[in-house]
Amino acid sequence: MCFIPFAFKITYKDTQTRARTGILQTERGIIQTPVFMPVGTQATVKTLTPDEVKSLGAQIVLSNTYHLYLRPGHELIQKAGGLHKFMNWEGPILTDSGGYQVFSLAPLRRVEEEGIWFRSHIDGSEHFFTPEKVMAVQMALGADIAMTLDECIPYPATYTQTRLALRRTTSWAYRYQSALKAALAEKEQAIFGIIQGGTYQDLRRQSTRELIELDFPGYGIGGLSVGEPKEIMYEVLDYTVPLLPVHKPRYLMGVGSPDCLLEGVARGIDMFDCVLPTRLARNGTVYTSQGKLVVRNAAWAQDFSPLDPTCNCYTCRNFTRAYVRHLLNAKEVLGIRLTTIHNLFFIFNLMKNIREAIENNCFRAFKHEFLQYFKD
Amino acid sequence: MCFIPFAFKITYKDTQTRARTGILQTERGIIQTPVFMPVGTQATVKTLTPDEVKSLGAQIVLSNTYHLYLRPGHELIQKAGGLHKFMNWEGPILTDSGGYQVFSLAPLRRVEEEGIWFRSHIDGSEHFFTPEKVMAVQMALGADIAMTLDECIPYPATYTQTRLALRRTTSWAYRYQSALKAALAEKEQAIFGIIQGGTYQDLRRQSTRELIELDFPGYGIGGLSVGEPKEIMYEVLDYTVPLLPVHKPRYLMGVGSPDCLLEGVARGIDMFDCVLPTRLARNGTVYTSQGKLVVRNAAWAQDFSPLDPTCNCYTCRNFTRAYVRHLLNAKEVLGIRLTTIHNLFFIFNLMKNIREAIENNCFRAFKHEFLQYFKD
Repeated sequence: MCFIPFAFKITYKDTQTRARTGILQTERGIIQTPVFMPVGTQATVKTLTPDEVKSLGAQIVLSNTYHLYLRPGHELIQKAGGLHKFMNWEGPILTDSGGYQVFSLAPLRRVEEEGIWFRSHIDGSEHFFTPEKVMAVQMALGADIAMTLDECIPYPATYTQTRLALRRTTSWAYRYQSALKAALAEKEQAIFGIIQGGTYQDLRRQSTRELIELDFPGYGIGGLSVGEPKEIMYEVLDYTVPLLPVHKPRYLMGVGSPDCLLEGVARGIDMFDCVLPTRLARNGTVYTSQGKLVVRNAAWAQDFSPLDPTCNCYTCRNFTRAYVRHLLNAKEVLGIRLTTIHNLFFIFNLMKNIREAIENNCFRAFKHEFLQYFKD
Repeated sequence: MCFIPFAFKITYKDTQTRARTGILQTERGIIQTPVFMPVGTQATVKTLTPDEVKSLGAQIVLSNTYHLYLRPGHELIQKAGGLHKFMNWEGPILTDSGGYQVFSLAPLRRVEEEGIWFRSHIDGSEHFFTPEKVMAVQMALGADIAMTLDECIPYPATYTQTRLALRRTTSWAYRYQSALKAALAEKEQAIFGIIQGGTYQDLRRQSTRELIELDFPGYGIGGLSVGEPKEIMYEVLDYTVPLLPVHKPRYLMGVGSPDCLLEGVARGIDMFDCVLPTRLARNGTVYTSQGKLVVRNAAWAQDFSPLDPTCNCYTCRNFTRAYVRHLLNAKEVLGIRLTTIHNLFFIFNLMKNIREAIENNCFRAFKHEFLQYFKD
């Protein structure tokens, strides 16, 4: 394979919003942005084969360092030839740093200057994540895009808490650049810094400034979608995104409801990931052009129309609400497969329509019309 | 659709055993026998789409009257346009009568001359199955092949118990023929009688004689694989099958381990069904040419070879034991999908090889060689 460096090129800029389309070039293929990355927490996008994930429209998959480190272990995946080979996904992979999972899933965490102590949510065993450690794990996995370790705080958090977490995140980011720059370049892995600062404008500004100095090839915006009202998240994006370098990809971490995708794109975001579409699917809720529909409900027991009559996905072409509801009700695996297929198709299709709207300079109208009918 | 009557034609007869190949003709396509029917208990072969079931090699699917009657209800399925349309399976469907499930799953059953009282295993509600009722349910479902209601008894059972159950089964079979013959013919549904008689030769003979008088288009052999040693089952087949009409299909109900399939075919059986291959798969056990392999075991954690190196199924072409084990271990749905695909492929492939061996008059040698390596 010839060497294709990591690169990002903006292709269209919307004139009415900050929306833009671009091409993200990685060794394993190009990614058209704005892009939604489905989450393959444990080396699988839940319920789907990699072929299905690809045919639904995925260009890149996200996987979780925390989960894979604990099970089956990054050494095992390295022995298997890396995560791509292990899970048989040939496209690009982004791995997170595990920061978010350590703070949201693992019990008994203690943050030190050196790193974070935590217990496994699986067997209670104690572990220590440092910036160097999580980078080594992500290198063993063979991620195309890796993320720096960050300290995630919940919403609401005080100014002091937020500032402390931000300082730690920046100091950890420094350690990547000093220790690992050479190793990373050799592995052809790109690493994104993560901007923290909660909902405080001056802290977001400070975080952005400090990370820009470190000259990462891309930036994650972290610490959002952690319980704050959507309007506050949009406000943070309004004042944070303009501070970021124009020619580098911007990744809004953990965000993925249809309305947030549209609002994020409008504010200049290029990349998203979220478990929401697949998690909702497993709980029996599907997206339609009219908004969310709880297909699990008895109301649909005798409804022989597709989940969304305007949808062209495999599920909608072949099965009825009544059948999908029966499967969910009877706890049949096929039920959550069919809803997962539908929801991911819906999101990938939305992203495709967003890109086309930007290219045709009608993104604002498209967004307005979509949100008029889509009730979240 | 032009009218294609139910018919069975024997195409090859093995000269060394009772094995034979045949073609079973139904309105929804022809079936090459000996055939294995995968079980779609709740209107889905667990974890798979109908497309996958077909592409793995299924010619006909079995579904359970008891389960569908309770949930979602046969009236709902009838409203959906029948079971084929509801589950989007275009090939033939055989439905059982619910007899076996009532006796193995449902609490509080009371057998009367008229029928069987039982409680739903889902919500405890009380229900009454009569021969006429289960036939009406199977007609509503639109089965291509339906089965008569039988009284199933466990192994071991006394002679008196067995004789009583047999008498009831025959008397119920009579009620089909008198009341429903016309209705069935109009619906183009075939109905098979079920031979009971436990492990008593004279009772099997009596049951067979009585059912032959009723001139069913095919015969199920019931009450086997209910806990008796395999040798006893083979013995029952040895003395029962020769009593059956040569030109009608013989269906050994609930049997499906590779060795039993071979031994059944050798004794003249044309049709089989069993949850074993799919249930084993969900428990993390897969078939290989060397016998069963518990891929869930830690022994395979770092084994980067396919489940069965000689297998050409989707799972074996794309994934390793280590990956499948990780998925099962992490309770990921894809794990049980991949093992299910593998096990069904294995069984369908075995049946194909069996048919070819019979056609080439080398079935006995094929069976011998297979069983030499396959350790159950």
